Amino acid sequence: MAREYDVVILGGGVAGYYCAKALRKEGKSVAIIERDSLGGTAIRWGAVPVKRALDFFKENKGNIEELLNRWQDDLAELGRRTKSSLSSIGVDVYYGEGELVDSHAVKVGGSILTSGYIIIATGTEAISIDGIPVDREWIITHREAVELKDIPKSLVILGGNVEGIEFASLYSQLGVNVTVIEKENSILPGYDGDLAYPIEKKLMDKGVKIVKGKSAIKAYVENSNVKVILDDESIMEGEKVLVTLLRKPNFPKGIERLNIRYSESKILVDSNLKTSVDNIFAIGDINGIMGLGNVAINQGLQVAEYILNGRNISMNYESLPRAVFTLPEIAGIGRQEEDLRGVSYKVGYCNFKDTWRGWSRDLDEGFVKVIVDEGQNVLGIWMVGNMVSEYIGMISPLFNNNLTLDHIKSNLIIHPTLTESILEAVLNINNGR
Amino acid sequence: MAREYDVVILGGGVAGYYCAKALRKEGKSVAIIERDSLGGTAIRWGAVPVKRALDFFKENKGNIEELLNRWQDDLAELGRRTKSSLSSIGVDVYYGEGELVDSHAVKVGGSILTSGYIIIATGTEAISIDGIPVDREWIITHREAVELKDIPKSLVILGGNVEGIEFASLYSQLGVNVTVIEKENSILPGYDGDLAYPIEKKLMDKGVKIVKGKSAIKAYVENSNVKVILDDESIMEGEKVLVTLLRKPNFPKGIERLNIRYSESKILVDSNLKTSVDNIFAIGDINGIMGLGNVAINQGLQVAEYILNGRNISMNYESLPRAVFTLPEIAGIGRQEEDLRGVSYKVGYCNFKDTWRGWSRDLDEGFVKVIVDEGQNVLGIWMVGNMVSEYIGMISPLFNNNLTLDHIKSNLIIHPTLTESILEAVLNINNGR
Repeated sequence: MAREYDVVILGGGVAGYYCAKALRKEGKSVAIIERDSLGGTAIRWGAVPVKRALDFFKENKGNIEELLNRWQDDLAELGRRTKSSLSSIGVDVYYGEGELVDSHAVKVGGSILTSGYIIIATGTEAISIDGIPVDREWIITHREAVELKDIPKSLVILGGNVEGIEFASLYSQLGVNVTVIEKENSILPGYDGDLAYPIEKKLMDKGVKIVKGKSAIKAYVENSNVKVILDDESIMEGEKVLVTLLRKPNFPKGIERLNIRYSESKILVDSNLKTSVDNIFAIGDINGIMGLGNVAINQGLQVAEYILNGRNISMNYESLPRAVFTLPEIAGIGRQEEDLRGVSYKVGYCNFKDTWRGWSRDLDEGFVKVIVDEGQNVLGIWMVGNMVSEYIGMISPLFNNNLTLDHIKSNLIIHPTLTESILEAVLNINNGR
Repeated sequence: MAREYDVVILGGGVAGYYCAKALRKEGKSVAIIERDSLGGTAIRWGAVPVKRALDFFKENKGNIEELLNRWQDDLAELGRRTKSSLSSIGVDVYYGEGELVDSHAVKVGGSILTSGYIIIATGTEAISIDGIPVDREWIITHREAVELKDIPKSLVILGGNVEGIEFASLYSQLGVNVTVIEKENSILPGYDGDLAYPIEKKLMDKGVKIVKGKSAIKAYVENSNVKVILDDESIMEGEKVLVTLLRKPNFPKGIERLNIRYSESKILVDSNLKTSVDNIFAIGDINGIMGLGNVAINQGLQVAEYILNGRNISMNYESLPRAVFTLPEIAGIGRQEEDLRGVSYKVGYCNFKDTWRGWSRDLDEGFVKVIVDEGQNVLGIWMVGNMVSEYIGMISPLFNNNLTLDHIKSNLIIHPTLTESILEAVLNINNGR
């Protein structure tokens, strides 16, 4: 059986999902092929479930039993929401492994879908590290870690990166005995020490053991426990081990039949996210540009605009806003001190408790840090605190146009709000912390 | 006794407070003269105390007794914070009524302060309406209403404006039987009906009686109750009446001695906030430009820059961000539909619960509304929900530079956050609510 579409999208993660909705809204006929669950890593297998569990603790909604009791229903609900959001507007969803037949045809199950455009949005997946074979029962990835059926007594997390630390936050809240192994000398590499410190402190208060400057070289199951051997020959042990370090691209079946250029780690695309085949695009993690949910969403929307209106894509990822969804959260945009070695810059701080709204809310944690150059330019704005991921808001376009100190000083911030801390931090530059 | 300063500021509300700190930081000698409490309406006598009490309920911190038990301490703490924040950097604070002696001298108590610049930041105060004499015991203003010593059983609020509705939110949470009288046919005049509706509904659920389209013409005390006569001759009754409608400028003593131009309602200033006397400025509510805390703060900072560096002030209040601190809050920037009668525009909505973070947080209320013109321009972004005053953030400079749909569509919003609702609202334009 053959069906004809304007656009066929391989992969129902956020890149494909937002792309499909935007194209369908403008009248295009669209099919999404998903081999597993709609939503991908950013919705179904990672970001959203982890945030849901952490939000549960942040907002003190109840005890762990209540969270766990509804967990499977919550995951099912995520699936229903993604599905109905597509179906209700007439996007056809096919479950199964899509296979590229030629540059205008994809096979799924017994059907051939022909289309004007094909969009590859198949993402990446976590894989084993040498010596540490993922078996999805003892040695697991984020996919198993969000399922939360049996809470282990202890968990060793390989990688003190964003993913590892978010899971450490979550599992330590669930009462699990967590150990994090990080090969660098600090957790959250790429984040300044003063931003990472409150998170590290809270993890340690919760009993998380953080091992820095060491790598895991081997793991194996022994007596219903996983033993992890580190490069200094020390041994860590946990009921489960969570691997966060390596990912590989999910190349679609049949890719070798077409003239699509790809390397071991990604499909190569031009600035319009087009592959070497003119009517085939690659969006989201699979193109290797930036493995982040907001980038994938944005690429989905941008490619839809390109297909609909022929508008060229021009994106600047330099001042990408991003967050670490821990307790407390980190969020910000632009450069950090880590990125500015050898460059001269100044820093201004303001603690939330020193703003009127912070006082009003009795906040005892959280701060803003503004990094500026020797002139008038703001290089970075970073925050630590409860829900700060919500306080970055719509600053990104402004930042891309060169945010200056004058912008902040002449800005009419709503009074009294925590956003005033950005102004206060600027006024505090040179005052120390 | 005479003392000499670079700058003497009359009035320690937010305009004077921020101006003093900015000038002092750059080495100027600064005195503030305050006849009452530092902080003014935006900190001590209104905004911050009301927010503190409402935040207490928003964050479910405890019961009413706990709030009331600490209330006097909280107000004292506000005073200490403002005082020490000035004193610690070397701003001299004089308590008493300042009197202009000449264009370079102000008298306070037994002292004469001479100075290069004088800044008038004396604000406005609530006054009686014809037939409704404020006596500060039975018929009160915001100043008495934030003192919260004796919670009345019932309260009639004259004015369903922002101030009146914020107090209605607060007092109804305290278990007071509240009636609001609003002469327009809807509460929160100047705010769109769909924004005001959730607030009105929550007030009514709390038992607040809202009388629309009627004005109070007379009030008097009878049998330990205040009787309020409306223009349709109906009678409302309450243990206290809160008047929110009229304010008058607090002209400093001695103003008539100088060549300062002023009208009945304000001191006249040029675009640099300078009065008709070259070294005297008027900032904050007293200049009648805009009676809002963030404008006052901004004017304080801008005048400091002007004095320090001679930089001309250029402010655009057209897309002023603002909020109503009720339960839930309203916040936004730019135009509302109310402002666009006769102009063609389109609206897109997104409920917070339809975003991934809204789902994660189990939000059942709150939405974003984006108003755009027939082209590419965003005219307004407005939100209703818990804590939305925090979600407007730093959007103001962007808005002043003409925010377009492309800015929002190409913006990299952190995923998953409620800020994504702004993008979703834009994608939903033409889809109805």
